[in-house]
Amino acid sequence: MLRDPSSKYSRFRAINLPDRTWPNNHIDKAPRWLATDLRDGNQSLPDPMSVKQKQEYFQKMIEIGLKEIEVSFPSASQTDFDFTRYAVSHAPDDLDIQVLVQSREHLIRRTIESLQGAKRAIVHTYLATSDLFRNVVFGLSRKDSIALAVKTAKFVRSLTKDDPTQQATHWTYEFSPECFSSTPTEFAVEICQAVKDAWEPSVENPIIFNLPATIEVSTPNVYADQIEYFSRHIGDRDHVVVSLHCHNDRGCSVAATELGLLAGGDRVEGCLFGNGERTGNVDIVTLALNMYTSGVAPNLDFSDLKSVIDVAERCNKIPVHARAPYGGSLVTCAFSGSHQDAIKKGFAAQEKRRGEGDKTWQIPYLTLDPRDIGRNYEAVIRVNSQSGKGGAAWIIQRNLGLDLPKQMQIDFSNVVQENADNLGRELKSDEIISLLQNHYNFDNCATKIITVKDYNFHKESDQVTHLDAVVSMDQKDIPIHGEGNGPISSFINALSEALGVNIDVESYTEHSVGLGSKTKAATYVKLSLNGVSRWGIGMHESITRASVNSIMSAVNSLVKAGALERDTLNSKDEFTEKIEKEVEQNKKREAAGKVKAKL
Amino acid sequence: MLRDPSSKYSRFRAINLPDRTWPNNHIDKAPRWLATDLRDGNQSLPDPMSVKQKQEYFQKMIEIGLKEIEVSFPSASQTDFDFTRYAVSHAPDDLDIQVLVQSREHLIRRTIESLQGAKRAIVHTYLATSDLFRNVVFGLSRKDSIALAVKTAKFVRSLTKDDPTQQATHWTYEFSPECFSSTPTEFAVEICQAVKDAWEPSVENPIIFNLPATIEVSTPNVYADQIEYFSRHIGDRDHVVVSLHCHNDRGCSVAATELGLLAGGDRVEGCLFGNGERTGNVDIVTLALNMYTSGVAPNLDFSDLKSVIDVAERCNKIPVHARAPYGGSLVTCAFSGSHQDAIKKGFAAQEKRRGEGDKTWQIPYLTLDPRDIGRNYEAVIRVNSQSGKGGAAWIIQRNLGLDLPKQMQIDFSNVVQENADNLGRELKSDEIISLLQNHYNFDNCATKIITVKDYNFHKESDQVTHLDAVVSMDQKDIPIHGEGNGPISSFINALSEALGVNIDVESYTEHSVGLGSKTKAATYVKLSLNGVSRWGIGMHESITRASVNSIMSAVNSLVKAGALERDTLNSKDEFTEKIEKEVEQNKKREAAGKVKAKL
Repeated sequence: MLRDPSSKYSRFRAINLPDRTWPNNHIDKAPRWLATDLRDGNQSLPDPMSVKQKQEYFQKMIEIGLKEIEVSFPSASQTDFDFTRYAVSHAPDDLDIQVLVQSREHLIRRTIESLQGAKRAIVHTYLATSDLFRNVVFGLSRKDSIALAVKTAKFVRSLTKDDPTQQATHWTYEFSPECFSSTPTEFAVEICQAVKDAWEPSVENPIIFNLPATIEVSTPNVYADQIEYFSRHIGDRDHVVVSLHCHNDRGCSVAATELGLLAGGDRVEGCLFGNGERTGNVDIVTLALNMYTSGVAPNLDFSDLKSVIDVAERCNKIPVHARAPYGGSLVTCAFSGSHQDAIKKGFAAQEKRRGEGDKTWQIPYLTLDPRDIGRNYEAVIRVNSQSGKGGAAWIIQRNLGLDLPKQMQIDFSNVVQENADNLGRELKSDEIISLLQNHYNFDNCATKIITVKDYNFHKESDQVTHLDAVVSMDQKDIPIHGEGNGPISSFINALSEALGVNIDVESYTEHSVGLGSKTKAATYVKLSLNGVSRWGIGMHESITRASVNSIMSAVNSLVKAGALERDTLNSKDEFTEKIEKEVEQNKKREAAGKVKAKL
Repeated sequence: MLRDPSSKYSRFRAINLPDRTWPNNHIDKAPRWLATDLRDGNQSLPDPMSVKQKQEYFQKMIEIGLKEIEVSFPSASQTDFDFTRYAVSHAPDDLDIQVLVQSREHLIRRTIESLQGAKRAIVHTYLATSDLFRNVVFGLSRKDSIALAVKTAKFVRSLTKDDPTQQATHWTYEFSPECFSSTPTEFAVEICQAVKDAWEPSVENPIIFNLPATIEVSTPNVYADQIEYFSRHIGDRDHVVVSLHCHNDRGCSVAATELGLLAGGDRVEGCLFGNGERTGNVDIVTLALNMYTSGVAPNLDFSDLKSVIDVAERCNKIPVHARAPYGGSLVTCAFSGSHQDAIKKGFAAQEKRRGEGDKTWQIPYLTLDPRDIGRNYEAVIRVNSQSGKGGAAWIIQRNLGLDLPKQMQIDFSNVVQENADNLGRELKSDEIISLLQNHYNFDNCATKIITVKDYNFHKESDQVTHLDAVVSMDQKDIPIHGEGNGPISSFINALSEALGVNIDVESYTEHSVGLGSKTKAATYVKLSLNGVSRWGIGMHESITRASVNSIMSAVNSLVKAGALERDTLNSKDEFTEKIEKEVEQNKKREAAGKVKAKL
């Protein structure tokens, strides 16, 4: 029987807002962003950042384009105080340095001290307003809470904007009714109203009310209702910045923030890649790139996402998950064959549209152009045993410029699938390339049994071409001669005659690779002999030489396939030996596992 | 300047549904669940599962309580076909085995073949219906698409529910208008209507329309609008199961699914811990436990979440992220001091409420009782340099049963913070315990300078107690004698007299630890001497002995602090030496790093 203690929990009872308007809205401009990686993020790390790491992180955030950064809790420790001093002396003039402090006078004094000399500073105070926190943790009535919040605002005011000696700094006040999402919304409005009256903000210098889902307790539409209610009921709305601060306990922090923006939010607090207490703060990277892919400029620059990942992973010592939106290593990858096919077709169609002046991005399965976050197309398609023909063909096309004919793609995908199946793992690009080269005796690294030493075409007329050549097989040089209506037929005829067989050309395709003086010709030929067919590939600056190469490529495969009787068929190249060895080891390991399981 | 190519993207234009009703709804019952880990999940793995791993995963899903499992794409490979046969022969009678197949007759034949003998089977076909996919990938008009979908439904019907030889199996048909979220919703309704008419479902045996956000393209409220529109416009609504299948490209798959359930969804397709193409399918674990914490039974059992994590990590070879909701290793941890304090108070308040018969779970920062997913409270609070007094105190309370007085918590938290700061990392529970033992000369493993060899209290009256004892210091035994109004004062007086000093008792607290015959007394004393104060702890079955121990604990600290002049103050215990060594090494490493950076 299933265990089910769900009865000890109950749904969060939210405000009722049947006339909500947010579901009809769209996000059409970027919010103000505040990154709290150095505060909310850092305090939740098993291994908090060193001072050096904080500095590196701080600089990276400025580079990304962040204009508001919460750097510390200055009154909590000397380290935090000192880092605030670092931030003050290293901040660009347009950066708001935000610091957090409890509603206690001596801590506030110390906090203001840490900000001396800052061009712009945000003093962020908080007070828990949810029933659970008020009653269980602090033992404060609603009235007590309001009084304390007002007293705190006035005290900060006396030390900052009202102090004539403090006028060199642009002071902003931020107040968080902590656990806003589990606070009766009308009480959140009431306490913020009182704080606003105490601070006396203006249109030019508004107060920030940060409304945290300190713990995410409901579906994100409920948070949006709360934000809309707050936004509609707080007085002097244009003196107020509504700030969203969502945690991810129910996995909906991105959604809650986005719906909160629809509902009236002006500002977002979060962390890069969603670091932060427990399940983390909302992920600023995902939010920003979601805007981006909806055609809205986020005012943050993630064009070199890898460097951002590097800093975050090094300083937080927590990896970005492989499936994290945008940043994850697997998110621009397609392994499934049908997905790979669709992406390949999408790129072709887009190429065409671009030629017609349409620059919009529309590729199946890829919401974002990987290049916009500093990734390349090579990483898009990866190949495992579940992949179809499209994946391997894509790798070959991107790496070698070869656009394999569709039938040949199927032929090659069988080879790839068999190898991936045997290995039980993804094949890397260079392995797929090696497979192609070896399977089709293509390029220098493949083992060939028959090679052409020298050749000479002589065109007698448009109908007749003669060939004289020397091929080498089993350490013997064999002169061959043939004629046909062009180079290919004359070469095939010459070979057939010399070997005493009848080789047929079933298919022939060619295309150019590259541009200008570097152009090469790629040719594909399918030859058959004694009921066996094999594909061959050739590539060369000279189209004739490319053709000869593709024929020799296919002929060698025919020989290896036993279509031509010989003794020396068992020579293996290094690559094949390596793969066979790995498969053999896998089998042994599996067998060993089975034996263990039986014991 | 910030890079901003956002102009090449545009917002997805969704259906307009101003009379939507879903934002007023609540999730009040579990949906039907379908896990596609073995299909959608497996096809997206760099290293797909081995057959053995698939079997293990399949069994685990049954154990969790899943009643619908998509096991494969049987026509795609022999491996998938064979695994389907395994599933058929190993499925419980009430399990629906689901398989996916393209809309092609020979593949459908092969698929039905793989299901022979199944008690219950769901044949799942799909057809891409979005404009992009229809035009670019398949080149099908809307009319062509409908014709193909109808033909497929009829063909499957002829091989299953209409075939008299196939009546031993309970057949269900599922159709996915692929990329539903980017398909014009009225066209999705139109094609599903046609498929429904072709299949002729009933109330008893409804058809499943699976509506995938194959790629997540909008905020989750838009998906909910689409689901509500579909649910309101599809005919014979009670013959239809509306199934949600969300991917996570914008990080909102959980939200989209939850809002989709509010909007009329009956069924959810997803994977454990959100495995699946790119950013993954929606995470069934998060969805189920979100319901659970809202008081709704999800009908899935995650009471041993660790074992589910183990199977998923082993088979998928992708780790569950440290901050993944519910499953992540850090999500039931609090490092911040204020969070730790709140949790500690919450547990105390809950203990009290339980005594009064109130069984509801209400703990600050913890939406879920860690025990409900097989975790323990020990893991809840962890201690780093950002932690306040509450964290270390919690560890001590949970492990040693000692409820340190609040002032002593502050004293000890300074010791802990200094150590964590120096090490630049989280302290483990056993390190915190060792710190306590060493700092307060508590228990056997601490180094003591003065020890009591023997003692004897003699109570003369209620006002007067005499003490005779022998203490040992610097290898000398010193007999001491004193009197006071109780054991503590007589011991303190005796010590003061023997050492020729004046020791004062600033604070004394005691409480019992454990129950019944195992009860011990814990005592805490704060002593001062020459302006220096130190805390001491004692624990013993005998309350008197516990008091003596706490006094000796504090006296040794006074001696070590130099409050009493002696020669042998520098003896260090092993633990202190180990910690100092690590700090030293850290400094050297940092210095080496700095030198490198300078070069």
